[in-house]
Formats: sequence, C-alpha cells, structure tokens
Amino acid sequence: MIRLLLVHDDYLLRCALRSLLTSAEDIDVVAASSRDVAHEAARRPADLVLLDVDCPGFSALAGMGKPQPWDGMARSGLVVIAPTGRPGLLHRAFEARALGYVSKDAPPERLLDAIRRVAQGSRYVDDALAPDFLSAARMPLTPRELNVLSLAADGASVSEIAGTLWLAEGTVRNYLAAIIRKTGARNRVDAIRISRHAGWV
Amino acid sequence: MIRLLLVHDDYLLRCALRSLLTSAEDIDVVAASSRDVAHEAARRPADLVLLDVDCPGFSALAGMGKPQPWDGMARSGLVVIAPTGRPGLLHRAFEARALGYVSKDAPPERLLDAIRRVAQGSRYVDDALAPDFLSAARMPLTPRELNVLSLAADGASVSEIAGTLWLAEGTVRNYLAAIIRKTGARNRVDAIRISRHAGWV
Repeated sequence: MIRLLLVHDDYLLRCALRSLLTSAEDIDVVAASSRDVAHEAARRPADLVLLDVDCPGFSALAGMGKPQPWDGMARSGLVVIAPTGRPGLLHRAFEARALGYVSKDAPPERLLDAIRRVAQGSRYVDDALAPDFLSAARMPLTPRELNVLSLAADGASVSEIAGTLWLAEGTVRNYLAAIIRKTGARNRVDAIRISRHAGWV
Repeated sequence: MIRLLLVHDDYLLRCALRSLLTSAEDIDVVAASSRDVAHEAARRPADLVLLDVDCPGFSALAGMGKPQPWDGMARSGLVVIAPTGRPGLLHRAFEARALGYVSKDAPPERLLDAIRRVAQGSRYVDDALAPDFLSAARMPLTPRELNVLSLAADGASVSEIAGTLWLAEGTVRNYLAAIIRKTGARNRVDAIRISRHAGWV
C-alpha cells in the first residue's frame, strides 16, 4: 500500500484528484492544502507527496534548499503535476527534490504510473514535459538578474530595486537591459510578462 | 437526468472533476477542452456547461457579447468554478451569461447543488464569492482604460498603444496615469500586476 499525501490549494480540485486516485487499490490518499502539509505529514506518516506546482502555495513551500516535509519520508518522494510550457515551475520542483513529474494534460494512468515508480525508488519524467526540462536547463538569466527581475515584477522601480539590492541605479538599468535582450522582450513590461508566463518569477 | 458538458483545459483535472461528478446519479458527464467545446456541444446535446474560468481557454471562449455554445441549451445554463480574490474573472463569466458560480475552494456538495439549481432554471452564487462580486461591481476603470491596460500588459510601449488605438501619445500617458492612480499602484508595472491578479486583463 502506498500512503500518499495529496497537496492542492483548492478544496474542490483536491477532492476531485482524490476521487480519481482512490480508484487505484494500492494507493491510500490523505489530502491537505499547502498551508497544512507539514502538519499533516507529521500527524499521519506518508510514503509520498503529490502536489500541483501551479498552486500559489507551492512557491511558498518550495524555497530553494529549504528542508521539506517529504525529505524524511519512508519511501521518500515528491511527485509533481505541472503544466506544460512553464519551465520555471519545473526548475523549482527540481530544486525541491521532486522525483516524479507528470503533465497536467496526461491521462490518469500516467499519474498512477509515476506514483508507483517513485514509490519503488525510481524517477519518472513525463515525455510531454521533456521540452520544458531542456528550456529549464538553458535558462539564460543569472541568479542576480532573476533577483532584479523578481523585484521589478512585484512593481518596484529602478531606485527601489537599487536600494533593496545595494546597487547603483545605473547597474540596475544595465541588468534590466540584459534581461530584456536575453528574454527577447520588447521592453521591461514584456520581459516580466515572458518570464512570469514561463514560471521564472 | 442532467446532461453536463464539463470543460477544462487540462486532461488530468478534467478526468479528476469527472470522477467527482460521476458519483452523483442524476448527472451524466461528457468532458471536453475549451478548444472542443462548440464541437462537443453540437455532437452531443447537453443541458448544462460547467467550466473553470481560470483556464486560459475561457478568455478565448468568453468574448464579451459573443454567442456561446450554452446559449441554445435545453435547460440553458453555464455554471462556472472560480477562484476567490479575482473579481475580473467573475465579471467575464457574468458577461458570458453564467447562471451558477462556485468557489474552487467549495466542498463538492456545493458544486452538485449549483448544477441542480441551474438545471431547474434558478441562479446560484456561492457565498464565498460574494465579496468578489461586490469588487466587480465597483471596478474603477473605464472600458477605454482597460483597453489601454490590456495592451500595456501584453508588453506594448506607449507609442505602440497610441498607434493601435489611434490616440496621441500624451493621451495614452494620461490614461496610464489615471490607471495607476485608480488601482492604487506604485507605477505602470505595479498597475499591470494588480489588475492581472484580479483577472481584469
């Protein structure tokens, strides 16, 4: 029996995914929102965590390098459901040490397959997500540029970004120019739009 | 028997919602993506359409005033699933003549309730969405300002917006200043961020 902790922020979709998974007789599902995942993991031991990387709660949960509720799990595994075309989200899931990756557009059998494989200690990557893994590996922005871009995307001005990162305003402008060039954007707003869509910021 | 056309862009979530709905014995579910909804509606007559307004396909489908696949349906109805805190999406669902509104965070019973009520010719609004309906009614931007903001959000510069809308650049700048003031934003990027989050653009 695979004990699965299913994490989704929306109760209705959590119930829907749970209803889909309970058709499999070898999977025992406990569901929780991102807010309660650590608490739920401590209360009821699980083998695996399944989560949707498209939920706002995922970014809060999966800070780079942070210890995660799934790190200490018996069969130790995180399986994620991810939309296609958003390599930044896959990159974050990878940083959070996910072992299984399933497209949101996959048939349910593929999700069950991924869960069973990761429970056996293997990895699983959905073919439909392979191009996004390639884009993720080729991400052109440096960590510093991503930093600048995140602040800009939150609505900070050049002088606010300069103040936050202890940089000269001219340096921030240079970073922004590099970001616009590397993302193939028309201007700053366009660079934010492109990077946000890809899931980088 | 209520014949329901379930519309969701992601196959996995479509299957999950379908699995949730088939537990109700009075509902017969046919599922489709937004791309195929008109085709599916023509092929198999349905009483109701259920769709997730958070899918990219919804915006393409629900252009203001456009004829919709659900307009000619027997019991004629559209029920939507909507996230809280995004009044712009509710507004678009309203323009698309939705009769039932259920929060993504609702228990499954509430969704079944909404489907049954709309099938009987009533309206249904989830309590959890009431504050968003109030915000939608109080939306401060004029249609022209929304137009300018949409173009800006797609990465168009002031001169490109001016060219597209046949306006002077100074007029576009005035619109943008009014938008920033009315949305309580710090600058243009911030106004786009706020309005996009609310679902207005």
